[in-house]
Amino acid sequence: MSGDQADNSRDQKVRVAIIGSTGYGGVELIRLLQGHPQIEITSVISSSSAGVPISDGFPHLTDIIVQNLDGVDAQEIAGKADVVFAATPSGVSSTLVPQLLDAGLKVIDLSGDFRLKDAASYEHWYKHAAPEASYLEQAVYGLSEVYGEAVAGVDFISNPGCYSTASLLGLIPAISAGWIDPKSIIIDAKSGVSGSGRGVNLGVHYAEVNENLKVYKVNKHQHIPEIEQVLTQITGEPVTVTFTTHLVPMTRGIMTTIYASMNNTYSDEDLVQLYREYYRGSPFIRVRDKGIWPATKEVTGSNYCDIGFATDARTGRVTIISVIDNVVKGAAGQAIQNMNLMMGWEEHLGLRYVPMYP
Amino acid sequence: MSGDQADNSRDQKVRVAIIGSTGYGGVELIRLLQGHPQIEITSVISSSSAGVPISDGFPHLTDIIVQNLDGVDAQEIAGKADVVFAATPSGVSSTLVPQLLDAGLKVIDLSGDFRLKDAASYEHWYKHAAPEASYLEQAVYGLSEVYGEAVAGVDFISNPGCYSTASLLGLIPAISAGWIDPKSIIIDAKSGVSGSGRGVNLGVHYAEVNENLKVYKVNKHQHIPEIEQVLTQITGEPVTVTFTTHLVPMTRGIMTTIYASMNNTYSDEDLVQLYREYYRGSPFIRVRDKGIWPATKEVTGSNYCDIGFATDARTGRVTIISVIDNVVKGAAGQAIQNMNLMMGWEEHLGLRYVPMYP
Amino acid sequence: MSGDQADNSRDQKVRVAIIGSTGYGGVELIRLLQGHPQIEITSVISSSSAGVPISDGFPHLTDIIVQNLDGVDAQEIAGKADVVFAATPSGVSSTLVPQLLDAGLKVIDLSGDFRLKDAASYEHWYKHAAPEASYLEQAVYGLSEVYGEAVAGVDFISNPGCYSTASLLGLIPAISAGWIDPKSIIIDAKSGVSGSGRGVNLGVHYAEVNENLKVYKVNKHQHIPEIEQVLTQITGEPVTVTFTTHLVPMTRGIMTTIYASMNNTYSDEDLVQLYREYYRGSPFIRVRDKGIWPATKEVTGSNYCDIGFATDARTGRVTIISVIDNVVKGAAGQAIQNMNLMMGWEEHLGLRYVPMYP
Amino acid sequence: MSGDQADNSRDQKVRVAIIGSTGYGGVELIRLLQGHPQIEITSVISSSSAGVPISDGFPHLTDIIVQNLDGVDAQEIAGKADVVFAATPSGVSSTLVPQLLDAGLKVIDLSGDFRLKDAASYEHWYKHAAPEASYLEQAVYGLSEVYGEAVAGVDFISNPGCYSTASLLGLIPAISAGWIDPKSIIIDAKSGVSGSGRGVNLGVHYAEVNENLKVYKVNKHQHIPEIEQVLTQITGEPVTVTFTTHLVPMTRGIMTTIYASMNNTYSDEDLVQLYREYYRGSPFIRVRDKGIWPATKEVTGSNYCDIGFATDARTGRVTIISVIDNVVKGAAGQAIQNMNLMMGWEEHLGLRYVPMYP
Repeated sequence: MSGDQADNSRDQKVRVAIIGSTGYGGVELIRLLQGHPQIEITSVISSSSAGVPISDGFPHLTDIIVQNLDGVDAQEIAGKADVVFAATPSGVSSTLVPQLLDAGLKVIDLSGDFRLKDAASYEHWYKHAAPEASYLEQAVYGLSEVYGEAVAGVDFISNPGCYSTASLLGLIPAISAGWIDPKSIIIDAKSGVSGSGRGVNLGVHYAEVNENLKVYKVNKHQHIPEIEQVLTQITGEPVTVTFTTHLVPMTRGIMTTIYASMNNTYSDEDLVQLYREYYRGSPFIRVRDKGIWPATKEVTGSNYCDIGFATDARTGRVTIISVIDNVVKGAAGQAIQNMNLMMGWEEHLGLRYVPMYP
Repeated sequence: MSGDQADNSRDQKVRVAIIGSTGYGGVELIRLLQGHPQIEITSVISSSSAGVPISDGFPHLTDIIVQNLDGVDAQEIAGKADVVFAATPSGVSSTLVPQLLDAGLKVIDLSGDFRLKDAASYEHWYKHAAPEASYLEQAVYGLSEVYGEAVAGVDFISNPGCYSTASLLGLIPAISAGWIDPKSIIIDAKSGVSGSGRGVNLGVHYAEVNENLKVYKVNKHQHIPEIEQVLTQITGEPVTVTFTTHLVPMTRGIMTTIYASMNNTYSDEDLVQLYREYYRGSPFIRVRDKGIWPATKEVTGSNYCDIGFATDARTGRVTIISVIDNVVKGAAGQAIQNMNLMMGWEEHLGLRYVPMYP
Repeated sequence: MSGDQADNSRDQKVRVAIIGSTGYGGVELIRLLQGHPQIEITSVISSSSAGVPISDGFPHLTDIIVQNLDGVDAQEIAGKADVVFAATPSGVSSTLVPQLLDAGLKVIDLSGDFRLKDAASYEHWYKHAAPEASYLEQAVYGLSEVYGEAVAGVDFISNPGCYSTASLLGLIPAISAGWIDPKSIIIDAKSGVSGSGRGVNLGVHYAEVNENLKVYKVNKHQHIPEIEQVLTQITGEPVTVTFTTHLVPMTRGIMTTIYASMNNTYSDEDLVQLYREYYRGSPFIRVRDKGIWPATKEVTGSNYCDIGFATDARTGRVTIISVIDNVVKGAAGQAIQNMNLMMGWEEHLGLRYVPMYP
Repeated sequence: MSGDQADNSRDQKVRVAIIGSTGYGGVELIRLLQGHPQIEITSVISSSSAGVPISDGFPHLTDIIVQNLDGVDAQEIAGKADVVFAATPSGVSSTLVPQLLDAGLKVIDLSGDFRLKDAASYEHWYKHAAPEASYLEQAVYGLSEVYGEAVAGVDFISNPGCYSTASLLGLIPAISAGWIDPKSIIIDAKSGVSGSGRGVNLGVHYAEVNENLKVYKVNKHQHIPEIEQVLTQITGEPVTVTFTTHLVPMTRGIMTTIYASMNNTYSDEDLVQLYREYYRGSPFIRVRDKGIWPATKEVTGSNYCDIGFATDARTGRVTIISVIDNVVKGAAGQAIQNMNLMMGWEEHLGLRYVPMYP
């Protein structure tokens, strides 16, 4: 919203292109960026629908985005934009992103192609050939609250996965403080259906999903190595996690319910304090008071990640609950947050959306 | 349910085959027929998945139907079954059903291919070539409560459409009594998503349907001529209706909200009495008391059609609300009801399912 | 969103109070107003929860609204605010709003208490005593696209009902042009559950609503006289409508499917052109192209009203489909639009939210 | 269904009363028992609604249960029934059930009041005074597949909790075999909304539940001691579990995702074989093949408990997934299964409902 205010600074605006504008990540970038005061969207791009108005496929954008969809051509994009968001599937970004970088664009890639530093691990989990090593190396992993400083000023950011974002933001303060045993981590993750994208298959048929709760890819999800890579780096020792993903009959939202053994006797209050300290100055993290746990709807449409705790003296474990909107903090929102950090703007610029409730 | 009791009469059981066992109509036939005391399912048939266990595609049938899916072959079916339900798409039944009939099978066809007596009308609304005239003529339209006597003893029944069933059961008593003006009929119909079948396309993607209400095929739905054909026959004059279909974010259920001008001043009580009289002896019609209207969930999983009224002195119109479970009374349930009538059994045999609530 | 830009003009900001901040209309006002550049929220008010943080009841507002809820006291409010939104129930506004006006506040009332000019009609439909006549007279009915000029500069606006907004925006161009017969109007309206408010009763229990479609208040809904009052004023003759309301298993969204007899042979294109002409310059009305009908999700979270048509030569009727987000264009959004018009600001100021999809 | 067949044996029918017929457990008992060949429902009882037809509150039972609701009086019940199902809340059963037993009735209690053998534990978790010790002792815990023999012939059965049923059926074969470490058990449980009953509060408001995933009672749920009591008895050592409950936006269904460390290297096939062996002869347990996990919809409306596994060599843990319909196997269905065992009938009598799909 608010082209109103943005008008003041039109001449300095950064030009932004969005590749993959016919997926849910792409249209969410459009929604969120409409209110960003420092940028203008100069190109919306789709390999499959180039030449037609985006509102043909997304009538909700009628009168909002009137330009036709462009095709994917790195040189053309470089002529129209300064920054490009690649909301393209894994296996596509791996070859496209290098072209965009070589054409001089700043790139924020939302696929999983540049998140793993280890090409062999990538190929094991993604079943594609890994991108060229130099680009893997160049990519900065944009978990904004943790790696915000590393992101500042770079040209190429790999945006974290949705599950990884919720899991890592829930785990990192405790694991960095040495309060939990890295060997004990179990992540029970639940996602709304938009997380699987706009492609059609029986698994997303309404009649199959509604009034149903399904589990999938148990211990096989490609966000596992991404989570383990970060935790391994932080702890300095190899971390493996148990990770289960569930499909919940709702459109948006991820909750991760994380279990870990505590290395000492900590109370709920201890955890609350530790996390608030760790995330001091992070506008999008909200740590709930003792005894209160977040629900996914409390962040819908916003870039927040809300976190709560339940320590259990009987078992010596802590249960950590973190929630995000998978399409926002888990994709488009964090990508914009990363653009802000990359450009040296305020982290929350154009992103102060209040969750839509109910 | 209850193979228990059914065991008593095993030797006399009628053998039933189900074609289209991998669609929602087909598996619902399986669910409902499991409790039918006079039949046994001897073949479940799918052109697309022959040779594999049905539980591969429908794990809910694990341990219930253990036989593999058969292919579609009229002679083979005739060797295994006495009665066949064809839960096949329009355009398939038109050529398949004649083969089944010629092979000596009794057939209940759930497609729309044999509902319209006028081949030209069929081709206009369905955009396929019509079936051969002799078969069109032979088919008896199985709106059980209205044409139950015509169905008895025949070999070939065309099962009504889901929208048509709800609309006609809501309209016929009033129109037969001459209480409403046939020229004034407007049907605002709403359906759950299972009505569009198990095929995948963007229109049934969970994220597109959930939290959404859509209208489609306004005045173009192929159930329109079926409704008009019946009303025209009853009134003896050409009837055209305004008909709108909506897709509601739920899996099962159809509601038709029907508007018509009354030819005289009738009260809600008058309507209640008229309908109860008309449907006396029909075990699956429940006419609500004055001032009470049915909701779709009140018939879920059952073969009921519930009906309520609101007459309005201010406008001289009556609003008639009828609800069914589209997969049961709108498809598989009414088909079994028709089989019962065809075979001379009690109309409700094996069909006394209590609605599942909540 | 975007306190960022708003900071520039802090000193000129209009102070806004919201009464009823613990209802869905109230929190939606908070959500939408957070991005409004010309106002600041100086008081959030609840009679039932005064003294506690609003985030106790609405955790999604954690860190966003940190002030405690105030009680309802007209003098106190007048000391803190210039404009007040009364998102209070019918029967409460009738006595509260006069106090607010007398205290010198500009008031936008979201209840139904000041919509009907005829006190007798109010008492018939609302079953409460009507407000004092002078206030009824003073209230300007804020259907923004139609009465925008009348709203400019006044002190007291009565915000239209959600159903009325969708119905009237769908009807007025055609009825003003004399294209449809006012005696023939039938409105089949469908709403998400948020429309019934946050109060708890069996009718909003999840297990009763989910997988269910219900009809309620057939021809008895209190928005009927509001619609008729406007149509009567426009046509100059008494108009009565047939009006049915349905509860759809979704949280947000209203669709009205409107039926009327055409006074002449008009095509879909004719209607599209008529409506586009009528709503020229109205930023929140989007008239769909011929053959395309809007769905509720295409306006979710936004202030849009989208409209489409299906003329039917067979019956001489037109079907008009209009959709809104009941909490936005049907309540909080239109209220803000009215504030903008009242204050002489651009109609869309702070309201350019892109629909959230999916 | 199928009063048809049941007629054969009318004279021998056991008379059944249902207390709590206006809750979801009660009406589900009615639904399921309609098809039971050996019983007839002679009294439906509600303390709150005695004297009115049950269809006033549950219109789906129109024409099915026409008798009025009776009040709660042990002597009266004893005059009408042989067996009584007490679907009453915790704290009510504790005093009511002894009266019923003393009146000579056979009782199946669906509340939690008689599940814990230790009165102190009951009072700690339930915050009520415990029932008298002799009744606690008399109650047989009716987890049918495990304690079926103990149930045979007794007069008083305490029906397990919904979460406990899913958790224990998923855990017992592995823990009995010594394959998993009892100290490592973590149960991440998810339930549909019907599990919280028909009482109204903000927590079950549709607009608060829909498109939302919530966690509640983390490590505080009253089913924890019930699970631990059984596991402790089986292992012979005190077992404590970590247990989290989630509210999923659906009406029916429970999934428990269970994590445990394996005491040895077992494969998925090993687990499948172990469980199939353990549950041999249990008609309601379906163990999925290696690599296939059950979804809640695959058991909806039926008495099945479906179970699947994922062993993980990387972490040495196994993930066990079990699903039930919380209202059937988690309440009314298992209660009927227990009645069958109690009466010496076949375990599945009247319970062979095919899951309703979709």
